[in-house]
Amino acid sequence: MSTLSDELLKTEKHNSIFESTVRALALPVCAAFGDAARPLPIAFAASGRVLHTRDGDKVAAKFPDSVKASGNAVLASAGVNRNAPRGRRVAVLFSGGPAAGGHNVVYGLKRVLGAGNTLLGVRPGPKGLIHGNLFEITEADTELIINTGGFDFLGTDRTKIKTDAQFNHVKETCLKHALDAIVVIGGDDSNTNAAVLAEFLFKGVKADGTGVQVIGVPKTIDGDLQSGDLLPISFGFDTATKIYGEMVGNLLQDTRSSLKYWHFIKLMGRSASHVALEVALQTKPAITLISEEIAEKKQSLAAIVDQIAQAVTSRAAKGLNHGVVLIPEGLIEFIPEMNALIAELNDALARHAAQFAAVADAEKAAFAEGQLTPDNARLLASLPAYVVRMLLADRDSHGNLQVSLIPTEQLLADMVKARVKAIDAHVPFAAHRHFLGYEGRCGAPTLFDAAYTYNLGLTAGSLILDGRTGYMATITDLDCGGAPRAIPLTGLLNIERRHGVDEFVIEKALVKMDSPAMRYLLSRRAAWTADDLFCSPGPRQLWGSAARQMPICVALNSDAKSLEFRIG
Amino acid sequence: MSTLSDELLKTEKHNSIFESTVRALALPVCAAFGDAARPLPIAFAASGRVLHTRDGDKVAAKFPDSVKASGNAVLASAGVNRNAPRGRRVAVLFSGGPAAGGHNVVYGLKRVLGAGNTLLGVRPGPKGLIHGNLFEITEADTELIINTGGFDFLGTDRTKIKTDAQFNHVKETCLKHALDAIVVIGGDDSNTNAAVLAEFLFKGVKADGTGVQVIGVPKTIDGDLQSGDLLPISFGFDTATKIYGEMVGNLLQDTRSSLKYWHFIKLMGRSASHVALEVALQTKPAITLISEEIAEKKQSLAAIVDQIAQAVTSRAAKGLNHGVVLIPEGLIEFIPEMNALIAELNDALARHAAQFAAVADAEKAAFAEGQLTPDNARLLASLPAYVVRMLLADRDSHGNLQVSLIPTEQLLADMVKARVKAIDAHVPFAAHRHFLGYEGRCGAPTLFDAAYTYNLGLTAGSLILDGRTGYMATITDLDCGGAPRAIPLTGLLNIERRHGVDEFVIEKALVKMDSPAMRYLLSRRAAWTADDLFCSPGPRQLWGSAARQMPICVALNSDAKSLEFRIG
Repeated sequence: MSTLSDELLKTEKHNSIFESTVRALALPVCAAFGDAARPLPIAFAASGRVLHTRDGDKVAAKFPDSVKASGNAVLASAGVNRNAPRGRRVAVLFSGGPAAGGHNVVYGLKRVLGAGNTLLGVRPGPKGLIHGNLFEITEADTELIINTGGFDFLGTDRTKIKTDAQFNHVKETCLKHALDAIVVIGGDDSNTNAAVLAEFLFKGVKADGTGVQVIGVPKTIDGDLQSGDLLPISFGFDTATKIYGEMVGNLLQDTRSSLKYWHFIKLMGRSASHVALEVALQTKPAITLISEEIAEKKQSLAAIVDQIAQAVTSRAAKGLNHGVVLIPEGLIEFIPEMNALIAELNDALARHAAQFAAVADAEKAAFAEGQLTPDNARLLASLPAYVVRMLLADRDSHGNLQVSLIPTEQLLADMVKARVKAIDAHVPFAAHRHFLGYEGRCGAPTLFDAAYTYNLGLTAGSLILDGRTGYMATITDLDCGGAPRAIPLTGLLNIERRHGVDEFVIEKALVKMDSPAMRYLLSRRAAWTADDLFCSPGPRQLWGSAARQMPICVALNSDAKSLEFRIG
Repeated sequence: MSTLSDELLKTEKHNSIFESTVRALALPVCAAFGDAARPLPIAFAASGRVLHTRDGDKVAAKFPDSVKASGNAVLASAGVNRNAPRGRRVAVLFSGGPAAGGHNVVYGLKRVLGAGNTLLGVRPGPKGLIHGNLFEITEADTELIINTGGFDFLGTDRTKIKTDAQFNHVKETCLKHALDAIVVIGGDDSNTNAAVLAEFLFKGVKADGTGVQVIGVPKTIDGDLQSGDLLPISFGFDTATKIYGEMVGNLLQDTRSSLKYWHFIKLMGRSASHVALEVALQTKPAITLISEEIAEKKQSLAAIVDQIAQAVTSRAAKGLNHGVVLIPEGLIEFIPEMNALIAELNDALARHAAQFAAVADAEKAAFAEGQLTPDNARLLASLPAYVVRMLLADRDSHGNLQVSLIPTEQLLADMVKARVKAIDAHVPFAAHRHFLGYEGRCGAPTLFDAAYTYNLGLTAGSLILDGRTGYMATITDLDCGGAPRAIPLTGLLNIERRHGVDEFVIEKALVKMDSPAMRYLLSRRAAWTADDLFCSPGPRQLWGSAARQMPICVALNSDAKSLEFRIG
C-alpha cells in the first residue's frame, strides 16, 4: 500500500492525474502570433471598421479621451510588434463569477509579456485592486495553473468600482505598485467598469502625466456578452454548456432507461437563455423553454404550464412516461405577467417597507396582495406558498428581487403535475428537479475555451505592449484559424435606465428569435417533443477526435463550416 | 447553414459526435479470451476455492440443486471452450437502477455467443420477463449501443419475482421463447433473485426435463455489491463516482475562486458510503461524512452538526470562508438516535395508521410525538418542520420510510448555520446544497467500466456455453491483466430478517472501518479540513494518458500496484 499512498498524496493540491496530464497539453496560437512554441506580441492597426451605438454621442461626451484616441475603430493585427517595450508592470484581476479559462488568460499574458515585463496578480477581484493587494506572478505560477479550471489562483469578487473614493484608491494602487496597465477579466458589467476605469486613468496618473492602460477580456458562462462576428462568444460559455450538456444527456439517457421520470432542469444564466439554447442544441430534450420567446409571445405562466402538460400527456399516449424540461434561470422575469407582478411588488414593498417588516410572517402574503392591482393580486394568490414566500423575500442592495432564489424548476414541476392530473388523471407523472449552476463555472476548460483564452491573453498582453487602452481583446474567425482583434469598449456602450438612473452600460446580448441558432431549435423542437430523438454529448474530451467542438450556437450563428473550431 | 444543419440532424438519436466516436473505441479483453479482435468463449473449472457463509447449511437446504451442482466452488478459466454448443437461446435483462456499462455486457454476450446462438433482449427488466416481452438482438443493435451509457436499449424496472404466479409466468416465458438461459444484470437484490430463479429453473422446465440456466452480472453504482478480491467492485461504480468526482472537484475549485460558499453535497448510494468515500479520495474536500463510521461511533445528529460547525469556524479563523461537505445519501439511518426514532415511528405509524390518517396535517407532528418514548419525542421536536414532515410522510410498500426523500444536505446546512452562529456570530457562512444522483447512473462508461463490462459479458456468455447455472460472472486481478471467474450465487447468501421475515439475501457490503481505503481517508481527512488540499479529477477521459484510472478505493483495498487498471 505504501507506493499507492505516495501516489495519492502527490495528487493533493491540484495534482490529480487529470490536472497533471492536462498541464502538458499544447495549445495552438493564431497565426498572427507566429510560432506556437514561442508566441510573439503583435502590434495593432485600425481595421477600417468603426462601431456605432444608439447613444454614441453621449458616450463620446462622457468618455472623451477614450473615444478620441480610438475613434471607436476596431483594431486588427498589424504583424509582430518588433518594438515592444520592456519594463512594463501589468496587473491582472478576475471580476464577477468564475468561468473556465481564466487561468489561461493569465498564462497568455505572462507568455506574451515575457521576462522583460512584470505581471502582477490582484487578490481578489476589484476589491483587491481597491485595497492594493497585488503580488508578482512567476512563470512557475503560470505553469501550475495552465489548463486548470476556476479562478482560484487569484480569487474573484463582485465589487463595482463606482464611488470617487474607490476610484482614488485604484489610482493609489497604480502608484504604489507603479502599474502601467490593468487587465480586467470579466463580464458585461466588469467590462463596462473597465471602460470607465480606462477613461478615469487615461492620463495624469503617473508623475510624468501619463495614464494607466486598461484592457478588458470577455468572460461569462451566461453567453450574454457577445457581439456578432466581432465577439462570437465570451469565454467560459463553452465549458459550462458542455458540463451541463453532459449532465442533461445523462439524465435523458436515464429517462429512457428507468422509463418513469420527468426531469425539470434549471440552467444557470441570469437573464439570457443562451445556455438553455446551447444545451438544447447539444442534447435535444422533449421541452426547451427560451425566456426571450416567452416574452415575445407574451405567454402567461398558466400557458407555459399547460404547454408542458400537453406534451406530457401526448407523450404518455405513446408510452413515453418520461422526458426532460430545460428551464433558463431567468425565466420568471421574462413572463410578462410575472414581471409586472414582481415590478409592482418591488415598488410596493419599497414604499411600505416599515409596515411590511412589522407584519407577521403568516400575514405578509395577504398584506402584499392588498397593495397590488387586482390582476397582480390574483396571480400572487394563485402561486404555491413557497413561491409567494420567495417573492416577498428580502430585496438585494438595489431593491430588486433575487430571482435566482425562486425554484422555478419546482414551481413548474408542481404546477405541471396538477395540470396533468386535471387533463387526465390516469397519466403517470413523477418529476425530479435539478439546478445546474455552480458545477459549470469552475470545470477544467474545454479545448475550445483553453485555446480561446490563451489567445485572448496573448491579445490582451499585445494590446498593452502596443500602448492601447480602453479596448476589449477578442478572437474572431474561430472556425478558420482565429484572428486577434480589439474592440473599443466605448463602441459597445449605450445608456440604460437602472434603478431610476441613466447608466452607461454594455447591454446584455439576449437570444435573438431570428438568429440561426434559435431558428434551428424552432425547426426541430416539436419533433423532439413528439419522440425521443435525444443524444448524449458525453464528458468533454481533451484528447482524441471528439475534443474539437465549438459551441453549436456559435457555429450556427457565425455560419461556420463545421462544428470544429480551428485556431492556428 | 445547410451543411451544418445536416451535421446537426445526424447527431439526433444517440449520434452525438462523442457517441459516434466512442463506438469505435477498441476494448481490451482478458488473455483467457484470446485475441481481442476475435474473443472466444472459455470453459470453466473449479478453482479450488470454496465459499462458506454463516448460514451455509440453511442455504444448502433451500437451494439443493444449485449447491449440489456447484459445491459453492469458485470457477476459473479452463482455457478456450472448443466444444461450445450452438443453437442456444439466451435472454438478457437489466434489473434495478441503471449503471454505466450495461450495454457493453450485452455487447460482450453477443460477441461470445456468436452467430451460432441467439441473444434475446427482455423489455423492460423482470417485468418484461414475467410478461414474456422479448425480441432478438442483432449485431447491428449491439454495434449501436457499444460504449454508450444507460440501460435505454432494453429499459429496466424494479419488479422482484417472488410470487408463485410470477415464477410460473417466467417459466412460461422460457417455454414460449424456447430459452436455454437468462442473464440478469443487477445489484444485490437482483442477484439474490437470480439465485432463486436458478434454483427454480434448475430442472424440469423443458420437455426433456432439463432446466434453464441463470447467470448474474454484478451491477450497482452504490458499490455495495462486492466481495474482497473475488468481486473487487460492481460495474457502474467507477463511472458514477468519476461523474460525481468531477462535479465535486468543480465545486471545490469554485469555493476557492468565489471565496464565500460552503457546498453541502449529498451523494447517491442507498446505504453504504462507498460512493462518498471514493469521491472523497478523488477530491479531498474539507469534510467527508461516512455513515458506517458515524454508526460505529454512535454519533448523534447534534454531534455531527457541531463537528462541521467547528470546522467552519476554525477554517474561518484562517480566512477560509468556504468548503465542501460530502454527505452519503443513507446517512440518516446510520445515526443511531435517528435510526431509533425512525424505527419507532415506523412501528407507531403502522399501529395507529387509521388514527394518524385522520389527524389534520398541522397536528400530525404532535400526534406522532405523543406515540413516542421521551427521547425520541424530544429528538423529533428538535428537527426543522420540513424534516418532521418528511419523517411522517407515506411509507413504501414495505412500511419503511423513504429515507432518500429526506433532504439531509439541507438539514445539515440549516443546522450547521444555526450552530456556527451560536459559536461565533461573526463567522460568515453561506451554503448551497446539491444532490448528485441520477446524473451519475447513465453517463457514458469510463474506460474501466467499458472494458470491465465487456469482459463480464464475455464471461457470462462463456458460462452459459459451458452449461453453468447459478453463478455470477466476475473479473478479478483488474490491475494485472484481468481474470474471468464465476462466483456461485449460493456462496454469497445469508439469512437476513426483513420486515419480520427471514429472507435469503446477498448482504450489502458496507464500508469497513479497517479497510485500506477507509484507513487512508482517516489518515488525511484532518489535513484536508485544516487547509485547502483538494484536487479536481476533471472530466473522465476516454483517450489519452489520464483515461486508465480505476476506482481509488478498489486500488487501495486490493493492494494494486498503481491506480491504473490493466485488462488484457
